[in-house]
Amino acid sequence: MTHDVYTVPIRTEPAYDVLVGHGLLEECGMRIRAVASDCRVMIVSDDAVYALYGEKVTRSLEDAGFRTDAYVFPHGEASKSTERLIDLINTLAESGLTRTDLVLALGGGVTGDLAGLAASLYLRGVRLIQIPTTLLAAVDSSVGGKTAVNLPSGKNLCGSFYQPSLVICDCDVFGTLADSVFSDGMAETVKYAVLKDPALFGAMEAFERGGDISGIVAACVQMKNDYIVHDVQDHGERQFLNLGHTPAHAIEKTSGFTVSHGHAVAAGMMIMARAAEKMGISEERFSERLGALLARWDLPLDAPYSAQVLAQAAGADKKRRGSSITLVMPLAIGHCVLYPVQIGQLESVFEAGTR
Amino acid sequence: MTHDVYTVPIRTEPAYDVLVGHGLLEECGMRIRAVASDCRVMIVSDDAVYALYGEKVTRSLEDAGFRTDAYVFPHGEASKSTERLIDLINTLAESGLTRTDLVLALGGGVTGDLAGLAASLYLRGVRLIQIPTTLLAAVDSSVGGKTAVNLPSGKNLCGSFYQPSLVICDCDVFGTLADSVFSDGMAETVKYAVLKDPALFGAMEAFERGGDISGIVAACVQMKNDYIVHDVQDHGERQFLNLGHTPAHAIEKTSGFTVSHGHAVAAGMMIMARAAEKMGISEERFSERLGALLARWDLPLDAPYSAQVLAQAAGADKKRRGSSITLVMPLAIGHCVLYPVQIGQLESVFEAGTR
Repeated sequence: MTHDVYTVPIRTEPAYDVLVGHGLLEECGMRIRAVASDCRVMIVSDDAVYALYGEKVTRSLEDAGFRTDAYVFPHGEASKSTERLIDLINTLAESGLTRTDLVLALGGGVTGDLAGLAASLYLRGVRLIQIPTTLLAAVDSSVGGKTAVNLPSGKNLCGSFYQPSLVICDCDVFGTLADSVFSDGMAETVKYAVLKDPALFGAMEAFERGGDISGIVAACVQMKNDYIVHDVQDHGERQFLNLGHTPAHAIEKTSGFTVSHGHAVAAGMMIMARAAEKMGISEERFSERLGALLARWDLPLDAPYSAQVLAQAAGADKKRRGSSITLVMPLAIGHCVLYPVQIGQLESVFEAGTR
Repeated sequence: MTHDVYTVPIRTEPAYDVLVGHGLLEECGMRIRAVASDCRVMIVSDDAVYALYGEKVTRSLEDAGFRTDAYVFPHGEASKSTERLIDLINTLAESGLTRTDLVLALGGGVTGDLAGLAASLYLRGVRLIQIPTTLLAAVDSSVGGKTAVNLPSGKNLCGSFYQPSLVICDCDVFGTLADSVFSDGMAETVKYAVLKDPALFGAMEAFERGGDISGIVAACVQMKNDYIVHDVQDHGERQFLNLGHTPAHAIEKTSGFTVSHGHAVAAGMMIMARAAEKMGISEERFSERLGALLARWDLPLDAPYSAQVLAQAAGADKKRRGSSITLVMPLAIGHCVLYPVQIGQLESVFEAGTR
């Protein structure tokens, strides 16, 4: 059985394509020739992903006429550090990569964020290819150009806006993801449906693991384009993509990041959905339908912390602008509004969202 | 005697103003209120500059209603490192600076490049004010948005393009510069005149230290705007600003950076001017007139290294694109052309430029 390849154009400046389909790792070299040729490619990947796909990607690149090097680092969030970033940038410099060469991020969110930031800084920017290998990275971090590493003071506090030249999303690789990692991606996917696509929400209610997810991924990427295209730097419409993320970041932070991003986003969306219901501004039984879909993927529907604790952690969020913060309030499947509150009001909103 | 303040609008996206005049340090707080108010300002400065101007700037900011902190680091090129960069970014995070606050770079090129890069990375970008305190920084690094730190492999290899919100250039501070540091700035100033302003070249031939340089600085900044406005990322017209810089970078590197930037640029311009004469493409006696002006400021007219050594060092320049590099060839006072050569041709060009 063959599948189509979806091409989603991301209309930022510069513009680029996101390819979504099957069997794309094997043909990545040929696909990359559409944006670059006869140059060197530094593959950046963690040890776990490189063991699975490094050889396949390297072979495809060399068959297409690229010379390859690889920078392989220990998997896990601990590698999203300034120390790892500087080591990677020094490696790009020592290997003599020039402005016409490429950095290729092969992996999940940590790899994409780390390699993207390094690519944006080395020589003030060399071209970047993203090959996301998790569902979460495919629908979220690999598109839109946000890059970052963590600081001791908090997550993603050091980063840049830097668009890749091409994103290649091979949905075959999601087959090897552990259930909880796949569910992380589903939480972000559900977020897009809640934001503005009731039909996608319906499709997700019908989807079961093992089915072809490429249409759903392409729909999410298209929606991400629509949110970011006029607001790359996150001052306006792009803020909608933070649905559930203010409580989610507080949950992740309070847990010492033992709660994963997608799981925290699921709980965060439920907190916001219940808060909207309590305030009487959302559709009836909206949170019930949302909760039922999230529960199918074993995602949490509650924060394991009090509203007070979450509000305190959220007060230090980097999205904060002076003394206020912009929340995203879901009113129905497919309809959300921006809702700016004072830091001091956060606790009562979270309290309203507690079951 | 009062002087006018020149306001040069830099029409990048986002746009900002460069103010050039006298007595501006004392009124910097009031000037900054035009772009921000009632927020926190992190003053970034080296120990030598902070001792001279830190108190004056702090008082002006606080009188204008800003709260201030200061990050003071050891002066000198060694501070333009990734270690210093990460320490500064961590300090911004620990102090709880938010997206509505400001970073203020008070100093020369090292300070502007370091603070600019940190401001571009912290929270993916907080607003930046540049107050250059050297002539070189005023006409060169404080305008145009190039930021960087050095790597063990080379200078400025890790950086970003990030425009400030305001540049305040108080020409009174140049009075305290050592002669050789003032001359560094004059070399870059001469570069602008050679690029496209014969009248400015004439004004510089008439200028003596102690005179009012603000008009010359404003003219250079205006010219820099014209070169960068359509080419922030240095792929086209901005490359003209590299006149003399390919041999200059090679000289700096070979000397272990004991030759300063402006001195190297003076020698680099002379090498290019002589090469153009030898090739028979430049105006007669052009290099003689250029050399006479540079010599007045005790700037070198020659590289202390052979063409072969320089070519080897230049082959590793980050401006290199694959196997070629774009030189700027001066044909007359006020007329230069871009001149791409293969890396292998560099030595013969430099050889032609040797006296």
